[in-house]
Amino acid sequence: MADSTDTLTPVTLDDVKRAAKLIKGAVVRTPCDRSTTLSHDLGADIWLKFENLQVTSSDKERGALNRLSALTKAERRRGVIAMSAGNHAQGVAYHAGRLGIPATIVMPEGTPAVKAENTKRWGAHVILEGKTLEDAARFARVYGAEHGLVFVHPYNDPLVIAGQGTVALEMLDAAPDLEVLIVPVGGGGLIAGMAVAAKALKPDIEIVGVEAALYPSMYNLVKGTHLPTRGDTLAEGIAVADPGAIAGEIIGRLVDDIVLVSETDLERATFALLMIEKTVVEGAGSAGLAALMADRQRWKGRKVGLVLTGGNIDPRLLASVLTRELAREGRLSRLTIDIPDRPGELSRVSAVLGQAGANIVEVYHQRVFTDLPARGTELNLVIETRDRSHLEGVLAQLEAKGYRVVVKTGAGGAA
Amino acid sequence: MADSTDTLTPVTLDDVKRAAKLIKGAVVRTPCDRSTTLSHDLGADIWLKFENLQVTSSDKERGALNRLSALTKAERRRGVIAMSAGNHAQGVAYHAGRLGIPATIVMPEGTPAVKAENTKRWGAHVILEGKTLEDAARFARVYGAEHGLVFVHPYNDPLVIAGQGTVALEMLDAAPDLEVLIVPVGGGGLIAGMAVAAKALKPDIEIVGVEAALYPSMYNLVKGTHLPTRGDTLAEGIAVADPGAIAGEIIGRLVDDIVLVSETDLERATFALLMIEKTVVEGAGSAGLAALMADRQRWKGRKVGLVLTGGNIDPRLLASVLTRELAREGRLSRLTIDIPDRPGELSRVSAVLGQAGANIVEVYHQRVFTDLPARGTELNLVIETRDRSHLEGVLAQLEAKGYRVVVKTGAGGAA
Repeated sequence: MADSTDTLTPVTLDDVKRAAKLIKGAVVRTPCDRSTTLSHDLGADIWLKFENLQVTSSDKERGALNRLSALTKAERRRGVIAMSAGNHAQGVAYHAGRLGIPATIVMPEGTPAVKAENTKRWGAHVILEGKTLEDAARFARVYGAEHGLVFVHPYNDPLVIAGQGTVALEMLDAAPDLEVLIVPVGGGGLIAGMAVAAKALKPDIEIVGVEAALYPSMYNLVKGTHLPTRGDTLAEGIAVADPGAIAGEIIGRLVDDIVLVSETDLERATFALLMIEKTVVEGAGSAGLAALMADRQRWKGRKVGLVLTGGNIDPRLLASVLTRELAREGRLSRLTIDIPDRPGELSRVSAVLGQAGANIVEVYHQRVFTDLPARGTELNLVIETRDRSHLEGVLAQLEAKGYRVVVKTGAGGAA
Repeated sequence: MADSTDTLTPVTLDDVKRAAKLIKGAVVRTPCDRSTTLSHDLGADIWLKFENLQVTSSDKERGALNRLSALTKAERRRGVIAMSAGNHAQGVAYHAGRLGIPATIVMPEGTPAVKAENTKRWGAHVILEGKTLEDAARFARVYGAEHGLVFVHPYNDPLVIAGQGTVALEMLDAAPDLEVLIVPVGGGGLIAGMAVAAKALKPDIEIVGVEAALYPSMYNLVKGTHLPTRGDTLAEGIAVADPGAIAGEIIGRLVDDIVLVSETDLERATFALLMIEKTVVEGAGSAGLAALMADRQRWKGRKVGLVLTGGNIDPRLLASVLTRELAREGRLSRLTIDIPDRPGELSRVSAVLGQAGANIVEVYHQRVFTDLPARGTELNLVIETRDRSHLEGVLAQLEAKGYRVVVKTGAGGAA
């Protein structure tokens, strides 16, 4: 990938500056702060741009509002249509509602009610239609054409790209000496807009995109590879099968690198942002920190800006991120203990655990599916300990009492 | 409770202003923003002061730094001691570390390693001593006296109270026309300092304290009641058995009311702050919003400021807040289904659930402890549905196939 900026691009710094003027006061100028604790712990100078603190919790508002601002009077009267079950839906609904523009949002059937509610809150008309995102998009195009509604694309539109590029202006304003920007890549609108603005203002700035390893679609487009794009990723907000052509062209010229992060990287970064920064970030929004944590040497001592793009994460996913990290840290563990099948044995094991200060969270006692002799049985427990060394102490005490214990901690192994 | 400010108080507006000058630049001037969505949903004009975004995630830093700033040169050289397993420990450790003052923090034995680590991070010497908080405090007093260390109290100290009062100055600066401040009450230092400053600047402002109903200790002190103070509350940060005498005296004169909130109120407010504001708040920090959500009529149409005092919540507690709220909303449910004990029955039930779009999270199939005839068995499931109406549809389909289903949703009942 080259870093020349002199070729003609479909989006220019002036477009981004014009967008910044248009959205001023209507889109939150979110904080861009240095993280004292992450900088201390990771050995880099880390700045965070909190786009998850927009009213509808994502940077999508910037592109949506810039697009809405370009509508003619007649188009405003007739209204707009968008297809999204996520951040784009809320961004369009909120700003259309504010401006008195009728908005229709198409979501696939089976979209959780909370997502429809978050969109209806701002006055949008929500239509649930289509089994898949593709079906819903097709329906939205047809319905929009029939009713004379302007279709607002989530990323493949120069006005949307210019709107999202305003994030870079604000970051360089808050911290002009940033050396690197690490930006999550889905459709590519955000990083493309940011690259146009940042490279024009500061040609030596490094711009690195991040995708989930399960969905390396822009990576494939730009690098000409054919890695598979599939599977359930925590970063569903950037799990885009068809990245934008306009953005792809800009990224190919201006972005220095695209890196891929694993699901464990994404989970750990989401956890760190929750526990250290006290901020709720969806998987996609934590991708920048995930990249940084996964390859600390690369960024050591550098001044790095990360965009926390959004905060709309399902509560059950968030709970699962928390408990899985506890398991990795040795604070929640699954034990299998072989015990003789005789009265009082469960109580004896519980007593050992209680004296050792471990908290029993779940118990499952079974005797059918074990490879022990007929008089033996298997006790499955989930226990909570203070930390890994406490867990080791608890295991030692069980073994000292003659129990054979198999322990399963988190997928990620030792912390 | 009266609201006269003309009596002599141990802390004055000038003390708070002096503290503000001393801590400026070293303590984060946290955002104080209007919440568009909470204001929209709750029908009041709601402003949030994000003290959970301090470097060590609580307002305690303000009081700690103001106290440290008053040390003599000799005292600074010898150092300070504090007893806390929580926010006060981190606040003292961080600012002592910054100022090069040796800090010793005593925590009770069995404090989770992560809390000790968060304190050691800033260079403090951590001693784990004492079975209870009281034992640890006693040890800290003795150890401090022996080593010539100044004891930094978490709340019963005029300098600490004045430091915490700076929160009110910043809130009234950001939103001068606030009509009410709702403030969590533990030892009482924060609300006392805020009341001194706010009532002096704006005598007609209403100041309301909030305690967990399980720990109404300041309520008892001020109102002369004898409600029990015990039990595990989500708001452990304000579960104080002995509130401060200095603060109590100020509160008795300046605070207009103290209200109590239930555990369900605290859980829901913590959930709302996570999901709407994308901010992680510990139980104590969500007490203000809990009070507002529990009694919406009282605050309707008013301009209310809430202090989100801290963000240090245990990840497992946070996960539990998330899943319990999902249960209350009908998105996670526990079903008990009576089925005949014959091959293929589990698969038939699973098929009905799958076709209805419900996700099976846990299965427990048992035949011993049921009151069914010997050929019957009981299937216990935890399922995930999109929302309450989806759950009702799923139940209707199970019943249409002839299954008898008992459903258990969240403790709080219908949303």
